[in-house]
Amino acid sequence: MSDPTHNINPHYKKHPAVSYTVDQCKHGIADQNPAILSFLISKAESRIPKDHELLYKVLQDIEDTGHSRVIALSGAPGVGKSTFANSYGQYLISKGLKIAVLPVDPSSNISRGSILGDKTRMEDIVTSAQVYIKPMPSSLSVGGVAPASFLATHICRLAQFDYIFLETVGVGQSEYEARHLADLFLLLLQPGGGDDLQGIKRGIMEMADILLINKADGELESSARNSLDAYKQSLRLMLPNTYGWKPKSGLYSSVSDKYNADLSSYIESYYDYMSSDDRLISLRERQNLHYFDTHYKEILIQQLLQSNNLRAAITDLRNDIQDQKIYPYIALQKLKALALS
Amino acid sequence: MSDPTHNINPHYKKHPAVSYTVDQCKHGIADQNPAILSFLISKAESRIPKDHELLYKVLQDIEDTGHSRVIALSGAPGVGKSTFANSYGQYLISKGLKIAVLPVDPSSNISRGSILGDKTRMEDIVTSAQVYIKPMPSSLSVGGVAPASFLATHICRLAQFDYIFLETVGVGQSEYEARHLADLFLLLLQPGGGDDLQGIKRGIMEMADILLINKADGELESSARNSLDAYKQSLRLMLPNTYGWKPKSGLYSSVSDKYNADLSSYIESYYDYMSSDDRLISLRERQNLHYFDTHYKEILIQQLLQSNNLRAAITDLRNDIQDQKIYPYIALQKLKALALS
Repeated sequence: MSDPTHNINPHYKKHPAVSYTVDQCKHGIADQNPAILSFLISKAESRIPKDHELLYKVLQDIEDTGHSRVIALSGAPGVGKSTFANSYGQYLISKGLKIAVLPVDPSSNISRGSILGDKTRMEDIVTSAQVYIKPMPSSLSVGGVAPASFLATHICRLAQFDYIFLETVGVGQSEYEARHLADLFLLLLQPGGGDDLQGIKRGIMEMADILLINKADGELESSARNSLDAYKQSLRLMLPNTYGWKPKSGLYSSVSDKYNADLSSYIESYYDYMSSDDRLISLRERQNLHYFDTHYKEILIQQLLQSNNLRAAITDLRNDIQDQKIYPYIALQKLKALALS
Repeated sequence: MSDPTHNINPHYKKHPAVSYTVDQCKHGIADQNPAILSFLISKAESRIPKDHELLYKVLQDIEDTGHSRVIALSGAPGVGKSTFANSYGQYLISKGLKIAVLPVDPSSNISRGSILGDKTRMEDIVTSAQVYIKPMPSSLSVGGVAPASFLATHICRLAQFDYIFLETVGVGQSEYEARHLADLFLLLLQPGGGDDLQGIKRGIMEMADILLINKADGELESSARNSLDAYKQSLRLMLPNTYGWKPKSGLYSSVSDKYNADLSSYIESYYDYMSSDDRLISLRERQNLHYFDTHYKEILIQQLLQSNNLRAAITDLRNDIQDQKIYPYIALQKLKALALS
């Protein structure tokens, strides 16, 4: 069993060779400069206080106009999320819009293969000056000050991209994380097969604001139409989301342009709906509070564990537990007494 | 969205009318006095400092001889865990042994019905002087100092019951909690149907040290035999546990005495195996460290949040987030600066 106090004294990562001043960073955000955006995002889960002092100075007085549309892009592995981002991204670019694509994968520190794969599946947009693509650093790190995905999204909002796509891994935790960050949750499904077969949990289905049957082309097209009918039936049984929005569903194909306008109209109607009665403002406010509430204890603990005495006490207590000199409950009580003495 | 600082100022529960001195408690533990054991266990997740001062004084210098055998009793709802405890409990009582049965149900604060039901299903042992039955208080409470189940088990160990049965709800979290508390994980299964049908996840199957097909009587007996054969096959494919123990499997029936001796021999061989090479000592040591590691941050946070200033700052920051006066990341950084100032 590893010693948890080990994490308190991290192996500080070396600073990257390139660095930027606060002013350069501010301008970089305003200019959507990819190098500077990536520089800032890489600071997001650093544990070096200086990095957060920099982020604090850069971010605190840039206004978030609320312009960016943040869309979670979910679906089982293999459903074609990257290819979708490439195809719909091209459509948005053709309208003169600027987009950011952030693959949100909490396990990306274990296997980064998929993310390299993502870039090759986005070959048509990856070189566009209107596109910024940034795979997320791990948010699993125990010591991370805060999941980088929230901060990365925040930075892209401040850079006023028209669209920010949070591409999830389609299973479990990353979906819920993305739901807490995005305005709109877009779920891609395979033609044919129920949601069980796709490994999509009902809980994830129920988060969808827009549901697309992807790969509606070639020999899968009729199967996609049947699937759409089936999903429309089951969507009818679902409750509207918190704000009363009833999910829309449609077909999509990444090999033709024919469904882009439809999708675009779904997205417009979602934003029209959410913009009235301050729904979008309320959603974003709840997300901001959720972020704060989820992380403030961790922040406080990190501050507390800066104390060498406390860290030494924890190590001693663990040794005593191991040597059966103290019961763990008694050890916790002793620690409590020490904490603020 | 609820205010998390609300939990900091709890509605203190009223003290129960009856109270005991430290000495009375110590003697009560030595005598396995049910009223005193329940009194102590009820203190386990109290947030009143005085209660923990009492527990500290009572528990700190009573020796844990390691005599008690702690057995997690798991299985899907309806598989007959309480009836099993009643039946096998009677067998142990007939050998002159003393037992404690602790239903570990993290949701028992929501629906206590099942626990009342448990007692009626243990009607043959509930009145025995050799038996102590104590449903666990909730361990879901955010503010709880530590899950009561660990401390309840610890108290029963100090009371030197021969057997302590931790009866779980059979689904999810409580299984893992019990696995971290028990020496031995005993899984009950229904005759017929795969583990999928029983709602038992593979992860739970893999925790089993002993697996019993229950209800091997009457018209289910042949079905139980078939199920046992099937499970023996799948157990063969499983890896031994951390200590190299290969799970044993057998039949059980609560309406006859015929399988009790077999089960008893399985349990003996498990303890024989685990007692050699200090395996049991190592297992319990790891469990103790796990308990400490899982809870020390919460303990520290509670101490820190005793500060009125800090609580006020959190409330102010949340209000500012709500009023869009501050970004949540910036709010966290401000809190960090405040924490130890």
